Amino acid sequence: MFSVSVRTHLMIAHSFRGEVFGPAQRLHGATYLVDATFRRTELDADNIVVDIGLATSELGEVVAEFNYSNLDDAPEFAGVNTSTEFLAKVVADRLADRVHAGALGEGARGLSAIAVTLHESHIAWASYERPL
Amino acid sequence: MFSVSVRTHLMIAHSFRGEVFGPAQRLHGATYLVDATFRRTELDADNIVVDIGLATSELGEVVAEFNYSNLDDAPEFAGVNTSTEFLAKVVADRLADRVHAGALGEGARGLSAIAVTLHESHIAWASYERPL
Amino acid sequence: MFSVSVRTHLMIAHSFRGEVFGPAQRLHGATYLVDATFRRTELDADNIVVDIGLATSELGEVVAEFNYSNLDDAPEFAGVNTSTEFLAKVVADRLADRVHAGALGEGARGLSAIAVTLHESHIAWASYERPL
Amino acid sequence: MFSVSVRTHLMIAHSFRGEVFGPAQRLHGATYLVDATFRRTELDADNIVVDIGLATSELGEVVAEFNYSNLDDAPEFAGVNTSTEFLAKVVADRLADRVHAGALGEGARGLSAIAVTLHESHIAWASYERPL
Amino acid sequence: MFSVSVRTHLMIAHSFRGEVFGPAQRLHGATYLVDATFRRTELDADNIVVDIGLATSELGEVVAEFNYSNLDDAPEFAGVNTSTEFLAKVVADRLADRVHAGALGEGARGLSAIAVTLHESHIAWASYERPL
Amino acid sequence: MFSVSVRTHLMIAHSFRGEVFGPAQRLHGATYLVDATFRRTELDADNIVVDIGLATSELGEVVAEFNYSNLDDAPEFAGVNTSTEFLAKVVADRLADRVHAGALGEGARGLSAIAVTLHESHIAWASYERPL
Repeated sequence: MFSVSVRTHLMIAHSFRGEVFGPAQRLHGATYLVDATFRRTELDADNIVVDIGLATSELGEVVAEFNYSNLDDAPEFAGVNTSTEFLAKVVADRLADRVHAGALGEGARGLSAIAVTLHESHIAWASYERPL
Repeated sequence: MFSVSVRTHLMIAHSFRGEVFGPAQRLHGATYLVDATFRRTELDADNIVVDIGLATSELGEVVAEFNYSNLDDAPEFAGVNTSTEFLAKVVADRLADRVHAGALGEGARGLSAIAVTLHESHIAWASYERPL
Repeated sequence: MFSVSVRTHLMIAHSFRGEVFGPAQRLHGATYLVDATFRRTELDADNIVVDIGLATSELGEVVAEFNYSNLDDAPEFAGVNTSTEFLAKVVADRLADRVHAGALGEGARGLSAIAVTLHESHIAWASYERPL
Repeated sequence: MFSVSVRTHLMIAHSFRGEVFGPAQRLHGATYLVDATFRRTELDADNIVVDIGLATSELGEVVAEFNYSNLDDAPEFAGVNTSTEFLAKVVADRLADRVHAGALGEGARGLSAIAVTLHESHIAWASYERPL
Repeated sequence: MFSVSVRTHLMIAHSFRGEVFGPAQRLHGATYLVDATFRRTELDADNIVVDIGLATSELGEVVAEFNYSNLDDAPEFAGVNTSTEFLAKVVADRLADRVHAGALGEGARGLSAIAVTLHESHIAWASYERPL
Repeated sequence: MFSVSVRTHLMIAHSFRGEVFGPAQRLHGATYLVDATFRRTELDADNIVVDIGLATSELGEVVAEFNYSNLDDAPEFAGVNTSTEFLAKVVADRLADRVHAGALGEGARGLSAIAVTLHESHIAWASYERPL
């Protein structure tokens, strides 16, 4: 099994609802290092997993939809705790949609899975992995 | 599949028995960066994998049992090489016990696996993963 | 010249005023890795720069005043752009006050300078250094 | 499942063929951080996954065959795009050969898989994993 | 004293002349993580050291002149060993020229120094610092 | 001002005397990442700060004197707290002796300073810098 990963980052504000979140129930923020991993069993005709330029630009576009914003104001997240693990799934699902739409190139149709890891600090991170 | 990971560290002395260990047969020591990863297939009602505050404090308690000690003096490790990979299993098993005992909260009963990675330096690390 | 450094982190929301900030004029947030460095020319009687336990706990208290908050709501920062470089100075100055007040121990009176670095992402950070 | 990982690095020149590579079609170069991970289900009689000294030296020998060279001149890579993901497979396969030949010790015959990750920068890396 | 730093990277091929370089006399390559630090004693009217957007884009342009190339073919480096420390000076000097030309904004005229660090691997890096 | 830095690591056991050290008064241990930085104002005839091969091997020899040992048993450290900051000075002074003895090459006689940083964990490090 092969994989290729690319990293970008995201800076947002948000708050959480629920006692489990303690002080993080208050409006605060985070820088997330966002790692997207693309998996497949065989390399394509160019001997690669995915066009790393497209992978980087598509990940950048997915992240740009949220970057420098307050997630509490995003209609799509109304009533939802935008936890690190939840956001990892959002990024992974949107990347998957772009793969299916052909935005990562025809070769990317051979991808079998996407994993996304968001690092919220040097001591905490979360991941979500899904098939394609 | 979702996961959440938290990091702490541990500073211990120990020695090894067996020619394979070379100079590490002498009493020496290590700082281990200890990464605990908790996995599950669905998020809980709060939209999280695990209460990260409890995960951090429980990992801290597990590590505190060994921190600032000489593992050669620990009765539970008598006659055992406390290799990095072995210690990863010790930490993972003790975290699993705490999950089963409810110490990570009721929501944590939905966890499916724990993985622990110990970094002994910038160029060597070891992991152990087990189901819950 | 000797130094000792300790790291913690801080998660806040804020916004900036001024065209130079582009999209960061919107309410967003950041995780800052906060590194505090203490300098002196000679070690103290215990052969250390500073009690690292006190250094860590005092840095933690300084950071706790802002952690999990929206800096736009802090009266002390009204009308101020809470840039990474500015926040580095805030942390350094507050640590300096604590050194002068004896909170880092009598030995810490021999410190000559404090430097604080805040990492806002894996690709951007800012520092402030001042004498004591 | 247990694993042990060791890191070294590799500095090479190369070029790529195919429009997908854009400016990387020109002769350029890379430092790869090379992480080799060895997996097995049970520890050996010394309580380890693999002799970490042998793992490090064998990985070093595999990497030394390419280090400080222009991969475009290597007969074994004639007509092949030496992408990061492809090179991860090359390193993994050569380590597997060495395991099978006994170079990592008799205990290493209990290994079940090898994974190799090559980091080409702080924002891009690739992996290949195979059974033994 | 304040500073702000930004990171990018650079992938080049080159070779060295001189026995001191050993195997690096052969054509090989490197990924350099390139950190540019801008220093000044007082913040500007926006409460910043430098427009981090301009700092990042100007550093990117400086690096782009060399990226994905063989430095042995660059006329400006004919007969010169393009060591990591030398390249750090090249980047710093070109950034200084851009500051003086106003490319980093009028506020950047208050900068007092630039430092550039190039990391050639996880275990080796070099820096050059100069006044403005 | 130019500098070149190289990294290695060191694994030791030790204990401290003095209440300030709390639980670290017990025999424990540490992995230190050891960074040695060599400074000079002008590059040598090869366009470098120092022969990085010699710098690495000499640093390795200095560190090897302590590696895989219990510092409490070292006669040269009898009655001394082998704190991270103190050990940084020990490494720096021994490297300086080697520079003066010509072990880093004739070109290294142009070095003006040495700095050594020891990282005891991901959240604590110490440095010592001295002229040559």
